[in-house]
Amino acid sequence: MEKLRILFRPRTGIVLNVLCKQKTCRFRIAKSKMSSVSNPPQSLLKPMVIPQKLLMGPGPSNSSPRILSASALPMLGHLHPEFTKIMDEVKEGTRYLFQTRNNWTVCVSGTGHAAMEAAVCNLLEPGETTLSCVNGLWGERYADMARRNGAIAETINKPMGQVFNLQEIEEGLQKYRPVLLFLTHGESSGSTVQPLEGVGKLCHRYKCLLLVDSVAAAGGVPLYADDWEIDCIYTGSQKVLSAPPGASPISFSEKGKEKVLKRKTPVRSFYFDMNHLSNYWGCEENPRRYHHTGPIMSVYALREGFSRLVEDGLENSWATHKKCAEMLHEGVERMGLELFVQDKSVRLPCVTGVKVPAGVNWKEVADYAMNQYKVEISGGLGAQAGKIWRIGIMGYNATPDNVNRVLRALSEALKHVGFKSRL
Amino acid sequence: MEKLRILFRPRTGIVLNVLCKQKTCRFRIAKSKMSSVSNPPQSLLKPMVIPQKLLMGPGPSNSSPRILSASALPMLGHLHPEFTKIMDEVKEGTRYLFQTRNNWTVCVSGTGHAAMEAAVCNLLEPGETTLSCVNGLWGERYADMARRNGAIAETINKPMGQVFNLQEIEEGLQKYRPVLLFLTHGESSGSTVQPLEGVGKLCHRYKCLLLVDSVAAAGGVPLYADDWEIDCIYTGSQKVLSAPPGASPISFSEKGKEKVLKRKTPVRSFYFDMNHLSNYWGCEENPRRYHHTGPIMSVYALREGFSRLVEDGLENSWATHKKCAEMLHEGVERMGLELFVQDKSVRLPCVTGVKVPAGVNWKEVADYAMNQYKVEISGGLGAQAGKIWRIGIMGYNATPDNVNRVLRALSEALKHVGFKSRL
Repeated sequence: MEKLRILFRPRTGIVLNVLCKQKTCRFRIAKSKMSSVSNPPQSLLKPMVIPQKLLMGPGPSNSSPRILSASALPMLGHLHPEFTKIMDEVKEGTRYLFQTRNNWTVCVSGTGHAAMEAAVCNLLEPGETTLSCVNGLWGERYADMARRNGAIAETINKPMGQVFNLQEIEEGLQKYRPVLLFLTHGESSGSTVQPLEGVGKLCHRYKCLLLVDSVAAAGGVPLYADDWEIDCIYTGSQKVLSAPPGASPISFSEKGKEKVLKRKTPVRSFYFDMNHLSNYWGCEENPRRYHHTGPIMSVYALREGFSRLVEDGLENSWATHKKCAEMLHEGVERMGLELFVQDKSVRLPCVTGVKVPAGVNWKEVADYAMNQYKVEISGGLGAQAGKIWRIGIMGYNATPDNVNRVLRALSEALKHVGFKSRL
Repeated sequence: MEKLRILFRPRTGIVLNVLCKQKTCRFRIAKSKMSSVSNPPQSLLKPMVIPQKLLMGPGPSNSSPRILSASALPMLGHLHPEFTKIMDEVKEGTRYLFQTRNNWTVCVSGTGHAAMEAAVCNLLEPGETTLSCVNGLWGERYADMARRNGAIAETINKPMGQVFNLQEIEEGLQKYRPVLLFLTHGESSGSTVQPLEGVGKLCHRYKCLLLVDSVAAAGGVPLYADDWEIDCIYTGSQKVLSAPPGASPISFSEKGKEKVLKRKTPVRSFYFDMNHLSNYWGCEENPRRYHHTGPIMSVYALREGFSRLVEDGLENSWATHKKCAEMLHEGVERMGLELFVQDKSVRLPCVTGVKVPAGVNWKEVADYAMNQYKVEISGGLGAQAGKIWRIGIMGYNATPDNVNRVLRALSEALKHVGFKSRL
């Protein structure tokens, strides 16, 4: 070999041109035989920078220092006794939060949407009819999920900012004869709280089960899942519970459980299958078996979120949210702004919709609050995009201090964009 | 009113017996009108106690202090620019880990099983045939998930501890003509590493896509997703990446992406739908829209897991896992124990199967190691339950010190149960 020339062809591999006895021989080394590792991404060599913000949008809300430090506790195995004890405590917390004695009370290993999906794929079978009460984003999303699961999803509709009464629900039940009715307890897109008393009893008269999304409400407003005959209810961890998103409590009544146990078709999701999850979460006599690896640290943090709620007391938590929301409502009205929900009795304390006045760009105001105060104020969704702001008051963030801070930021931002109160 | 007697009936509510003009009138106050909150669970008023353990099972592995403290950083919104920057860095880390340039590179908001489910429900449509190569738990689980999704799941089978060769795979492709072939890269139940070179090309000759589960392998053994023509690959966060479980990287080739985009039926899961996830993870030109709330802190921690990998370098990581596994293999053989996998070339460095000698109870040994050393050694699964131990060496735990610690614990435990080496 007299001369060797190596050519690197990124797509095809290395080509060796060997000048050998005055003749060039070409050898190709297949790329898979000589794969070299690509350069490491430089961005990952720099530190993460996370600013401290006050999250007063519709969620996530801030976690308390105690909850945050729980996330940094040492890892445990997903079936270690110290961890299953924590799971049991999270179950107790969930039962307290929902005011239920349901045996099938677990967490789904994902964020709020995962719990919604778990409810849908456990409770519905292909071809069954479900009725979604749509007064904002969540009823629509539920209907979408139900259809993806092969169910027929009918809807009854109200504009955002309004709720359903028993008569409207009964008409829907009569018309569609669904096996499952979906209601959003705290409609974060329309900032309403749906009255739930009597709905469960009504549904049961029509041989229908009641599914309730309480992601943006549980812990912030009165809720009695057993008394109100709710068959399945779920929430998220990152709202009133003030834990990071990642594990979502869900609970099934005996009727709900029976519906799952009597399915003719398998649950379409293995990850969300309550037949397995109920065992992993220790709802059965049988010893826990490996189903999947739970989100260990998210469960630690959620446990501390429940601990906070229990120390405070559920009724105090409801009262605090009410008080802070009223402070906020008075404050924004004093600025000459109008609340989105007209009917005081159905205003969700956890998320407040505030109308954007004519001539004001909602985003300019929100950006100002973020840039100058590191306070998050969110915009509207769907039909209300650009027309309302949404201000969240949830869990650890539900204090008069924080309400004052968001009011100050909002008021200054409005001045900044030239809004003059009509008052 | 002369006399009033209140009876509390827990199930029906309050009954008022009013003795009025010598006549008792009975009033019932419906329970829902007077619901009182149940007592808060006392267990949640006590602090959490989490011991420090060395997790040398098949996962989760321990997180480094840096990764743990990232979990406790302040909360951000799921669409805040500081957070989407971190998401972008996680994507870069994922591409580096898998050695791919795939555009559709995201994380699923759940643990490893969630990523498997995302692969299944995006890539398969009802009625399509898939072929699962079963040599342990994961191939079986995949087939289960595929069937739940309406696909026809065929299998080719090998005993645990063995892998598939190209000829066996080709015979399966010829026989079943699947649209998707599933292989487990690191079979943690059988402690094998599946050779993947040539499989992608072979699949593509048969118009079949290749799906690879690399939960227990990625980062610990060589892997070149692009060169090996893998169409979809996923992993977990809690193995070699040493981050808490909760966010799971997944990546689709152009062919894989095309398969999803050309679906005739909607993806059955909203939560896992890549049509939405790819937008949320910034894989498109379009601005990111709200799809679901991501697991913020799990993504922080995963980002630091990738940072650790990038600082170390992928090739060093592979070499370290190999070196530590060899130390472990020599150590257990010196004790007179036998390794489960005969063929040295297919031993998975991340999880090692060790045969339980006749007359020894695996659990007694594992319990001793946990009680005396706080070292986790796991047992076998399925056909190998009770017959093997499984010892994990992954990521932050892959150090000679930890290997020595697990060997010491194992050796002492064996003495404790009266095992005498045959050597």
